[in-house]
Amino acid sequence: MPEPGYDCPAQPGDPVAAIATPALIVDLDAFERNLDRMAAFARELGVDLRPHAKMHKSADVARAQIARGAVGTCCQKVSEAEALARAGISDILIANEVVTPGAIARLVRLAARARIAVCADDPGPVGALSAAVTAAGGGLELEVLVEMDCGGARCGTQDVAQSVALAQAIAAAPGLRFGGLQSYYGGAQHIYDATARRAALARSIALTATTRDAIEAAGLPCARVTGAGTGTFLIEGASGVYTEIQPGSYAFMDRDYGAVDEIGGFEHALFVLASVISHPAGTDRAVCDMGLKAVAVDSGLPRVAGLDGVEATGVSDEHCNLHDPAGQLRIGDQLRLIPGHCDPTCNLHDWYVGLRGGQVECLWPVTARGKVF
Amino acid sequence: MPEPGYDCPAQPGDPVAAIATPALIVDLDAFERNLDRMAAFARELGVDLRPHAKMHKSADVARAQIARGAVGTCCQKVSEAEALARAGISDILIANEVVTPGAIARLVRLAARARIAVCADDPGPVGALSAAVTAAGGGLELEVLVEMDCGGARCGTQDVAQSVALAQAIAAAPGLRFGGLQSYYGGAQHIYDATARRAALARSIALTATTRDAIEAAGLPCARVTGAGTGTFLIEGASGVYTEIQPGSYAFMDRDYGAVDEIGGFEHALFVLASVISHPAGTDRAVCDMGLKAVAVDSGLPRVAGLDGVEATGVSDEHCNLHDPAGQLRIGDQLRLIPGHCDPTCNLHDWYVGLRGGQVECLWPVTARGKVF
Repeated sequence: MPEPGYDCPAQPGDPVAAIATPALIVDLDAFERNLDRMAAFARELGVDLRPHAKMHKSADVARAQIARGAVGTCCQKVSEAEALARAGISDILIANEVVTPGAIARLVRLAARARIAVCADDPGPVGALSAAVTAAGGGLELEVLVEMDCGGARCGTQDVAQSVALAQAIAAAPGLRFGGLQSYYGGAQHIYDATARRAALARSIALTATTRDAIEAAGLPCARVTGAGTGTFLIEGASGVYTEIQPGSYAFMDRDYGAVDEIGGFEHALFVLASVISHPAGTDRAVCDMGLKAVAVDSGLPRVAGLDGVEATGVSDEHCNLHDPAGQLRIGDQLRLIPGHCDPTCNLHDWYVGLRGGQVECLWPVTARGKVF
Repeated sequence: MPEPGYDCPAQPGDPVAAIATPALIVDLDAFERNLDRMAAFARELGVDLRPHAKMHKSADVARAQIARGAVGTCCQKVSEAEALARAGISDILIANEVVTPGAIARLVRLAARARIAVCADDPGPVGALSAAVTAAGGGLELEVLVEMDCGGARCGTQDVAQSVALAQAIAAAPGLRFGGLQSYYGGAQHIYDATARRAALARSIALTATTRDAIEAAGLPCARVTGAGTGTFLIEGASGVYTEIQPGSYAFMDRDYGAVDEIGGFEHALFVLASVISHPAGTDRAVCDMGLKAVAVDSGLPRVAGLDGVEATGVSDEHCNLHDPAGQLRIGDQLRLIPGHCDPTCNLHDWYVGLRGGQVECLWPVTARGKVF
């Protein structure tokens, strides 16, 4: 049994005041409303919903999404997919390139026991995937999608001709099956203004459609065209081009997504619960016990929830300084903070503490925490 | 046994090429030279060396430091101290405030089985500590230091009178023993210019001396005056005021400390090993598999080691984009990156992979990873 206060921050039935801080807490009512809301959007849009598990890394969250109609999950890493598969998730798209011999060997073993698809953007790794699948034998066939760069300037084929040639290489490779297009525009997720975001997506969606048409004109059906995130799924989902959407953050939300216009009305369901450990006499400064090892700051400082007039001013390894001009906080007080960026924040913690009605209802392990290989 | 590629990135005897990436690697020769170097500095300065374990969170690293003469370790959290104590580290200063009832209860249990000291900056928690120690019985006595704010603007007493009053409160509290002064100037560690840093420290050291003298004039000897970090230990260590220094980062170093002048010539011993997973045709961009879950960016982007002309340009959840104008990298290539900030980077990983002579010599668990309570 995990030991509360050492291995985990609480146990079911605890009042909030008993939770060891800092801890990652989930407002279960808000979380479930977010899941229901996204499931309804996917039904209305007529697209498959494959939420991205890189955000939550939790088999419990993935199961709750699948129970509401999601077709499976996305992962980014083989070890992440493996952790979720071991916990019973059976349909996983690795929305990323897998290229090293060790990772390919693990991927092929995983594909023998779950429905696995993976992406490629270069013929070299396609050859290596084919060789590994063929060597494994047993009639295994691995689904491979072409990842195209639709504007994100990260991985992906760079033009239509490269995409067609790569699709042909996949289709021709023994042991591989061409599965369609991965077209994710990361940079568009956080274009805060909806008009600017729609303009950026108009270009990426048009390029995706052109690419799909060219591949299909070469005789290779794109069984799926997949992509989109919390900031953009309403637009790609309504485009008629995408058959599948991959949002992740909607389940929990974060401060940065909270600033993006018109993304569907999702609620903040994830917080870091922290305690005030110092309030130096004669200052307007409170200091809480949540540092860089409990909250990610790559997308900005956390926001204090439910307490007007108190603001985070800086985060160091183990501390967060708070400006408390009205002296609202006392040493020992708990407060809830909304992380700037949910994905890397969740990965810092070993447990989600699920709250309902002011007490701890459940503890969920962060199943794939640290599974970065 | 941890499973290489899933639970851990490698096993002893592996060549570097077989390490699953991204992985935290330690150049053992450079690491040992850093430890020897700091041990020699402490001897020359005539101060006790108590390296801060919040940086490495590893019992193996702490043991290597103690084997070279360190008197024990510092920790920041009770669960962190507990993890190291369970792994055999027996002398720990928690250089931080412990205020919540749950954390105090754990601290008192820990103090019954290891030499533990803790800090306070307010009379409220001093009373709670005293009550918990007294309730535990068994003749237990807990050492408590006054944490003073010597310039860091975080926790700590704010003036000499507060410090004296708090020392008196500790000394008078049943079950507690006044241990001296904690005076750490976090903000000075990264003043890059040595002259400006010395000027800032002249003020903090003078305030520390005045505070010590006032407490001792009140009849309470300061058995230790402790503080200092990698950026400042040479100055505090030579001041005649500090009896103990607490540097942490020197063991591994990072990009940010690498830019600080005159801190003692420590070498980069810590790297994230990453693999190139994409090199989009026709671009000068390579993408490696090290994202925000494998490297902390709060103090800036990582630096590519040993490969002139290649630079990190951005880090997202699972990827790092690299500018590779000369096309030096190929898909599948490994590269070593120096993190901007070692402490939160180490806390992302479960294992250190120790390298010597081009192969894996050891795997060390990050003993207190995630122990943030």
